[in-house]
Amino acid sequence: MPPSPSKPVRIAVTGAAGNIGYALLFRLASGALLGPDQPLILHLLEIPQALPALSGVAMELTDCAFPLLRDLKLSDQASQAFDGVDYAFLVGSRPRTQGMERKDLLRVNAEIFKAQGRALNERASRQVRILVVGNPANTNALIASRNAPDLAEHQFSSMMRLDHNRTLSLLSERSRIPVADIHRVTVWGNHSSTQFPDIEQALIADRPALEQIDSTWYHDTLIPTVQQRGAAIIKARGASSAASAASAALDHMRDWIVGTPKGTWTSMGIAANGDYGVEPGIFFGYPVECQGGGHQIVQGLALSEFARAKIALTDRELREERDGVLDLLPSSSRG
Amino acid sequence: MPPSPSKPVRIAVTGAAGNIGYALLFRLASGALLGPDQPLILHLLEIPQALPALSGVAMELTDCAFPLLRDLKLSDQASQAFDGVDYAFLVGSRPRTQGMERKDLLRVNAEIFKAQGRALNERASRQVRILVVGNPANTNALIASRNAPDLAEHQFSSMMRLDHNRTLSLLSERSRIPVADIHRVTVWGNHSSTQFPDIEQALIADRPALEQIDSTWYHDTLIPTVQQRGAAIIKARGASSAASAASAALDHMRDWIVGTPKGTWTSMGIAANGDYGVEPGIFFGYPVECQGGGHQIVQGLALSEFARAKIALTDRELREERDGVLDLLPSSSRG
Repeated sequence: MPPSPSKPVRIAVTGAAGNIGYALLFRLASGALLGPDQPLILHLLEIPQALPALSGVAMELTDCAFPLLRDLKLSDQASQAFDGVDYAFLVGSRPRTQGMERKDLLRVNAEIFKAQGRALNERASRQVRILVVGNPANTNALIASRNAPDLAEHQFSSMMRLDHNRTLSLLSERSRIPVADIHRVTVWGNHSSTQFPDIEQALIADRPALEQIDSTWYHDTLIPTVQQRGAAIIKARGASSAASAASAALDHMRDWIVGTPKGTWTSMGIAANGDYGVEPGIFFGYPVECQGGGHQIVQGLALSEFARAKIALTDRELREERDGVLDLLPSSSRG
Repeated sequence: MPPSPSKPVRIAVTGAAGNIGYALLFRLASGALLGPDQPLILHLLEIPQALPALSGVAMELTDCAFPLLRDLKLSDQASQAFDGVDYAFLVGSRPRTQGMERKDLLRVNAEIFKAQGRALNERASRQVRILVVGNPANTNALIASRNAPDLAEHQFSSMMRLDHNRTLSLLSERSRIPVADIHRVTVWGNHSSTQFPDIEQALIADRPALEQIDSTWYHDTLIPTVQQRGAAIIKARGASSAASAASAALDHMRDWIVGTPKGTWTSMGIAANGDYGVEPGIFFGYPVECQGGGHQIVQGLALSEFARAKIALTDRELREERDGVLDLLPSSSRG
């Protein structure tokens, strides 16, 4: 349910002085998430070294004279930053630096998200909705969730929406049909190069996508293009996706709050429960319908053998990621 | 008047791969200027060296799957970029580099805005509204306008809104009254350190600001803080104001299109006609009311001696700027 406009909602953003944070904050403060009547307070978390830059970002936010922005809280302590928050965008994560193995990256981020999970568990609103954007997002969400036993698993999610939007826009470009008329796309699995952008259920202008899009282009162009899009952006722009990631984060959270339109769905990373043969517990990109403030996996889709194989591949990667951080995953004590 | 939603409007942004451009484009494409029903086409202009980066920005815009964004045109030619545009945000300008005199900066930008004025004159919609953000914004607007004799002077404007918003937010912080309840602030003159943030007419919660704000703080803190805010942001953030400038540009253009609320006004740089003793012809920050798609200077304000002296100072600077580019200003052939 959208919150009541009478009192400000509290929105946390971590990595708030980074490029995605910078692209996200001004849209949040302008009302892009909750509309023009909902005042808000932004809670900004950064690492100590980035606090001076964060103060500059805060000055700019203030300089916008946004009528909805009632207050700004800046901190380098998760427990302060998450105090009473209704929504949390966990954007900050350690990027991979030269010579760092994927495994090392996983570990260093695991420690961050363990601490943030604990802080959310202690301090956030009991109805908090959490979106993990910082990579490796799925496993970071798993770690945060498992370290927050007093919150429900379904309050945590990880971002597949940028991949989802990229799939929509590529289909739109190919078919010359506006994105608003393309539905039922799913990006399954991990937000990594094993992700599976699935158009087998998709409708373009109410007709099956695969009747309009040849399968060679789908397999040999669409899927690898979406999987490798992040690298292509870095190459062209000289910097990684920031504004598009921020926009996808807003889309994800907005759909979660106000619901997905009837007859379509979105892609969200949520805790798997075994549906579609996915390992229970891991955070997995699924086709998801949102209604009444909740989300549920779309049931009963008939998957092709091709799709099953792709899903198995990204499932395997996520199980391996989980196995690399098992010691940071308290066994779930939830009911 | 807001445009009709039936056909896409065309919005040009120059310097589109720069930091202000990057902060502006995604808000434009999301509907922040003209609302959720108005489709749009973005026309992006960059210098040839920045075209690769611009293509990366375009990829990210596409990746957002914005339902309103119907097309993107990328060019390094002003005549292409301005073809048929309804709105133009002239953001790009040459920044001051080490060892460059203010006079040199003026000249190098003058050439850019002369060419852009000519291109707008030839190619833009006859109803185009133009906002100059790139510095020195006032004099750049003067040059562009004078090189576009077939467009009306009132179709050109320069940005004072960031200074205006900064003044509002500082007053809000000082008085602890929300920005939405503060009205009738003006930033007069040049968007430079001679600008005059004027709160002598301002109302805070319907009462005169100067009954609530002591004049020492107004003179010794508010005015210099607004005048020097850009430098303070650079110092804190390590980069110049980008998202706040983009936000102000949206505010400026939105008020121009939909009108300022009754009983209040905004600050816009527009061609002076002698009102309040300002040199006719120069682009000067004035208190401006917008209605029916037009703008007019608020008349009849009683200015203090203090205000008159401040206005004279910034007026003098703008006359000097104009005198430095006189050879690029065809004498106006307008009626």
